[in-house]
Amino acid sequence: MTICALATAPGGALGIIRISGPQSLEILSRIFTKDLTQAQPNTIHYGHIVESVAVESVAVPQRQTTTIDEVLVSVFRAPHSYTGEDSAEISCHGSRYILNKVLELLIQNGCRMANPGEFTQRAYLNGKMDLTQAEAVADLIASTNKATHQMALSQLKGHFSSKLAQLREQLLKLTSLLELELDFSDHEDLEFADRSELMSLAKEIDNCVTHLAKSFEAGQALKQGIPVAIVGKTNVGKSTLLNALLKDDRAIVSDIHGTTRDTIEDTIDIQGVTFRFIDTAGIRQTQDTVEQIGIERTFAAIDKAKIVLWIIDEEPSNEEINNISQRTENKKLIIIKNKSDKTDNNSYNLLNRPFIAISAKFGTGIDDLERAIYEAADIPALSDNDIIVTNARHYDALTRSHDCIQRVIDGLQIQLSGDLLSEDLRQALDTLAEITGGQITPNEVLGNIFKNFCVGK
Amino acid sequence: MTICALATAPGGALGIIRISGPQSLEILSRIFTKDLTQAQPNTIHYGHIVESVAVESVAVPQRQTTTIDEVLVSVFRAPHSYTGEDSAEISCHGSRYILNKVLELLIQNGCRMANPGEFTQRAYLNGKMDLTQAEAVADLIASTNKATHQMALSQLKGHFSSKLAQLREQLLKLTSLLELELDFSDHEDLEFADRSELMSLAKEIDNCVTHLAKSFEAGQALKQGIPVAIVGKTNVGKSTLLNALLKDDRAIVSDIHGTTRDTIEDTIDIQGVTFRFIDTAGIRQTQDTVEQIGIERTFAAIDKAKIVLWIIDEEPSNEEINNISQRTENKKLIIIKNKSDKTDNNSYNLLNRPFIAISAKFGTGIDDLERAIYEAADIPALSDNDIIVTNARHYDALTRSHDCIQRVIDGLQIQLSGDLLSEDLRQALDTLAEITGGQITPNEVLGNIFKNFCVGK
Repeated sequence: MTICALATAPGGALGIIRISGPQSLEILSRIFTKDLTQAQPNTIHYGHIVESVAVESVAVPQRQTTTIDEVLVSVFRAPHSYTGEDSAEISCHGSRYILNKVLELLIQNGCRMANPGEFTQRAYLNGKMDLTQAEAVADLIASTNKATHQMALSQLKGHFSSKLAQLREQLLKLTSLLELELDFSDHEDLEFADRSELMSLAKEIDNCVTHLAKSFEAGQALKQGIPVAIVGKTNVGKSTLLNALLKDDRAIVSDIHGTTRDTIEDTIDIQGVTFRFIDTAGIRQTQDTVEQIGIERTFAAIDKAKIVLWIIDEEPSNEEINNISQRTENKKLIIIKNKSDKTDNNSYNLLNRPFIAISAKFGTGIDDLERAIYEAADIPALSDNDIIVTNARHYDALTRSHDCIQRVIDGLQIQLSGDLLSEDLRQALDTLAEITGGQITPNEVLGNIFKNFCVGK
Repeated sequence: MTICALATAPGGALGIIRISGPQSLEILSRIFTKDLTQAQPNTIHYGHIVESVAVESVAVPQRQTTTIDEVLVSVFRAPHSYTGEDSAEISCHGSRYILNKVLELLIQNGCRMANPGEFTQRAYLNGKMDLTQAEAVADLIASTNKATHQMALSQLKGHFSSKLAQLREQLLKLTSLLELELDFSDHEDLEFADRSELMSLAKEIDNCVTHLAKSFEAGQALKQGIPVAIVGKTNVGKSTLLNALLKDDRAIVSDIHGTTRDTIEDTIDIQGVTFRFIDTAGIRQTQDTVEQIGIERTFAAIDKAKIVLWIIDEEPSNEEINNISQRTENKKLIIIKNKSDKTDNNSYNLLNRPFIAISAKFGTGIDDLERAIYEAADIPALSDNDIIVTNARHYDALTRSHDCIQRVIDGLQIQLSGDLLSEDLRQALDTLAEITGGQITPNEVLGNIFKNFCVGK
């Protein structure tokens, strides 16, 4: 079946409509002023999209042709296209009316509307990419900063897949040796697979799997933004500080004319990493009211945060110090002394830690604070080749692989028989294969992966 | 200078970045994994956009390359491109980060950001289209229904321009004959230009210019939506009717997944024509309050409307009849009898005019009403070749042409001398030339035309 969809957001100067499937060029030729069925691959064709309507009132049946748009059509041929099928892209003027009309004509002539992610799903089914790469496409489109962009691109390039392939190959070697022993089960003392070699290989693989699974936490933080809580007494300047941090960032993100930013939470980007402020609605509301620090709410925010900004404007009470220090044991704590313009900067006894002096009102010290926040995030330096697991599905499979390999290691220690060991190894192999979709992947899993794509990709 | 801009709205699966200018392919080749400087026109190239950064910490100077995106580049060659220059389009993944980054790299390598409409302005300056066609491009992108789409497309195809060219040719013939007489001014009685022939030609041209100028009103109405007022006493069902009309339409416009509709005013589309309801905020607010009909506000709405929907639910008082009939003399008045389900449909004496029985609540009679509204709009049947002036600049020039030709006609009647006649004719020629930009167009005028374009077109 040939599918079509709008691949760009509506509202620009141009709009791209994508078509893919065996009938792509036949269907398109019916509504285009040129015959494209013999068009060369990777070529661009200028012409008009036209609608042909039968005129009823004439004795001799006639058809009246209405021009819909002046367009450029890009032609791609199987297998050298994104989907691996014959496909085309129509570059139209970005009018909602035109884009609607062209889609309507395509559907009238035999296309159907694509489901979300269906172009990429076809690319996967036609062997153009594996599942992790398909998933990376959605991540790449959703990427909003350098860190998420590089993680997605690394995954799209297949670095994660080739790492997994290496692991599987090693596992497969182990398994084959074990299964060879089973074939000669008459000879009980025959061991093709050196048990100590097996043990060290299993441990090495487990290290790697564990390392990948652990990178998930970092990956999630980078993808969703690193959670930051701002705490401190009323009127200490929490909302002024928040505004100072946000304002600084706003100027950077408004590069592209017409870009809008849907702010669900307050976020800032520092050196390409997103930081997400937790429960700042509360800060904004309570800043101007003279009320006690909302203890419960503050502690809840601290629990969810990786980084805690504790803001003070005078030497804090022992009670406040104790409260904060108890709650931030596993957190990165940054102590901020606000109103540096007003009061002296004598160092207080703050858990024997340094503080950053700022004036939220006048914007001084904000650069230092941003550097401190970035350092506290402890981001591993990302290069093109780094592998960070960002996908919950991959994390789940890696965790299950780890369990299987752990059973192999345990089995080796208690000198378990080869057939039981090989069963655990086979399971580990299967869970790793799930990630790239190298084995048969159930439709249900595919459906889950592609339903979160946008239409047109 | 080579320019670049994002040509699609941000937020889709794909984003297109456009480049145009003599250095397009050189600049692009610096950030693309293939050399495009020798690329064939109208071809598509797969590759990566890469950023190359000098690595400081190494003894031997090195450069580190970071991949930004996997893209398709379409190559166009002067003069066979939209702008008439060498140009290219980069089809990227639609991530805001990627699109920003690619634009940044292009600018670092010698492009500058395009001004609104600059691609089309270059197309005009390079003789790819005249001014009316350039203006039609902006209209085409902004078109939201069949009527505005067809007017823009007709203008883009040059129908308006060729009509103007015909008029100018006729005027030029007249002027040449008159000016020939001036060369032989010694022979006072010599008349190359037959005055009665001149008169009929001038009148014919004036008819045509006037006809075009008059089409402006219809064009404006189609472009901005035909203004409709809903009037009637409190609780007669005005807001229920409005909702019934709007609801009917909403189902139609939500064809494209993800299309959003910025409702500045309440509008509906009937058979491809937009109708705009005036001051419906007032209707919504006052519907449920028991107050006198807001006379002033209602009359203001009627004054701005072309079509007035007068809604009643019982025989109206003489005062109401008089009020409405006085105010709607030059309007299309549609009388609507609401609550057809409740009361009998006996005909009242309503200015001896028929009414349409509806039940706004149950949605009956709405189809009849929509037909009546469409008929009242009195839209000329639009075909591909119809010329409707939609542009205030054109309207202004046509009006001034009309004044000049009228002076010619007056001059002929009082037997004015040829040299004075020819002066008015020359002015008429110049005003018509302003429209297509055939003569030298001042920068100021060009600036005004292109400033309302979106960036990227």
